[in-house]
Amino acid sequence: MFKQISIIGLGLIGSSLARAIQKHNLAEKTVAIDNAQDVCDKVMELAIVNEATTSIADGVKNAELVILCVPVGQISAVTEEIAPHLKAGTIVTDTGSVKKAVAEAFQEHLPDGVEFVPGHPIAGTEYSGPEAGFAELFQGRWCILTPLPENSLKAVEQVTAFWEACESHIEIMDVEHHDLVLAITSHLPHLIAYTIVSTATELEDDVKSEVLKFSASGFRDFTRIAASDPVMWRDVFLNNRTAVLEILGRFSEDLTAMQKAIRRGDSDYLYRTFSETRDIRRQIIDMGQADYPAPEGEDPEGTPPVEAPHKASGSAG
Amino acid sequence: MFKQISIIGLGLIGSSLARAIQKHNLAEKTVAIDNAQDVCDKVMELAIVNEATTSIADGVKNAELVILCVPVGQISAVTEEIAPHLKAGTIVTDTGSVKKAVAEAFQEHLPDGVEFVPGHPIAGTEYSGPEAGFAELFQGRWCILTPLPENSLKAVEQVTAFWEACESHIEIMDVEHHDLVLAITSHLPHLIAYTIVSTATELEDDVKSEVLKFSASGFRDFTRIAASDPVMWRDVFLNNRTAVLEILGRFSEDLTAMQKAIRRGDSDYLYRTFSETRDIRRQIIDMGQADYPAPEGEDPEGTPPVEAPHKASGSAG
Repeated sequence: MFKQISIIGLGLIGSSLARAIQKHNLAEKTVAIDNAQDVCDKVMELAIVNEATTSIADGVKNAELVILCVPVGQISAVTEEIAPHLKAGTIVTDTGSVKKAVAEAFQEHLPDGVEFVPGHPIAGTEYSGPEAGFAELFQGRWCILTPLPENSLKAVEQVTAFWEACESHIEIMDVEHHDLVLAITSHLPHLIAYTIVSTATELEDDVKSEVLKFSASGFRDFTRIAASDPVMWRDVFLNNRTAVLEILGRFSEDLTAMQKAIRRGDSDYLYRTFSETRDIRRQIIDMGQADYPAPEGEDPEGTPPVEAPHKASGSAG
Repeated sequence: MFKQISIIGLGLIGSSLARAIQKHNLAEKTVAIDNAQDVCDKVMELAIVNEATTSIADGVKNAELVILCVPVGQISAVTEEIAPHLKAGTIVTDTGSVKKAVAEAFQEHLPDGVEFVPGHPIAGTEYSGPEAGFAELFQGRWCILTPLPENSLKAVEQVTAFWEACESHIEIMDVEHHDLVLAITSHLPHLIAYTIVSTATELEDDVKSEVLKFSASGFRDFTRIAASDPVMWRDVFLNNRTAVLEILGRFSEDLTAMQKAIRRGDSDYLYRTFSETRDIRRQIIDMGQADYPAPEGEDPEGTPPVEAPHKASGSAG
């Protein structure tokens, strides 16, 4: 599909892409670029790329496709650095969770003849680093592309074909709309999870140890989300500030209403709100997007049948 | 183990207990009591109890052990109703997520010679009703008992033995302490999940449909928790008001600090907080209580290997 693909940043996403490229034979040569020498050594040892270098200039100069897999906050600096070394016709794409800030950084720095097609695979785990990656990470997941007005159809098609070869489903969206949708589906849930786990870290010691012990009653689900990469998420919040603050404002209003209902013993309000939220879950299940299809007799966590004491679902009382 | 066990309320928990009693042969006779005739018919059809009745008087009169599996808000009324029909020596226990309010209700109504030992199995799913239950629901899970000062050692031992026979691990705790620990591990997470899903239901229609579509990026985890039984959870919040409001107050302060950090672009604060929360996850994993043991190459959701497009982990960006 490509003579050379260069991946910048070999963390979970970058190293998974390297593996997917290898698995599906999408490039004659894959080059890893990472500013950490130990990461370069690791990906060579894992044999998931053909070359690895800490030099951006060397790494990108012959690439037909360059994929930035660095935290959103580094995209502007990295773009400025790669710009002089890109040949005309090169396509650049990224995997960042925020698209407006990234698109602006690219438009500022990229030379004529180089096309940037912003992308965002909706895939990840709470693990980080080149060893956490796997080729199937993007399989059956959405990849949102937010093409810019100046993009050629051909470039958009090539990036689309690349992600489809990684077994993703493609959705095309406007940059601002992407950032708003993700603020509610992803950024706010992560912010909330980080906050509630942070609240727990400040509890008195005797309570804290029991919070860990009985985490299966709901809290544990939040700790998994709150174990995500801190640099990546810091950058997401700093770069999608407007949409996140807007959605957070709405959430805070709703939380205050809930608090008032509990304080006043407003039974009707609580029942009505808790009933309405069930419908959303049903719609997600109807869309075939729920994680677990069958309730009856099954552990809804889908936990493998190994001896795992104290696991429990997120809705234990 | 018992001649007759009577279960009041045959929802997820009650019907799972009936199945566990049958599986482990814990009673000569199991009697189901439910005020809904169709629930009585259903549990007879499922053949998980020996008798089913809508009459509390008939249902409890010969019981050695009575287990209340009704929402916390109904415990006081049900206790008052069963009290005159219990023979001396009967043990009564419950499965409610709040223990102080429940213990007070029991102390007010129960006659001499009848012992109430409050209990709380940390187990559940987001599904409700007699068909959602299964015998293994309590297997390997914690069951917290909060004995009262007036309880006899013998009664506590019998309830302990019952839950151990259902394959639960037992933890003994003070009622107030239980309510505080659960307020953070369970009640606040559910409140937050209900709130964030509620916020999403009020979004503009075009955004809402995309929130469902891309729910896999984090939001979906919250919808599962927010699909829990509305009556049960309404009662939890109304009956554990003090502890929930205390913990919610701390959470709100932390959320406001997070909001301020995003607005001001306080990169250090965000990075530091997001890093600290990771440690909690590590401790849970070290305690062997994480849901998924092995990261490498595995879907951290533990989803079965069926064709399930668009599933994704909770920490996708």
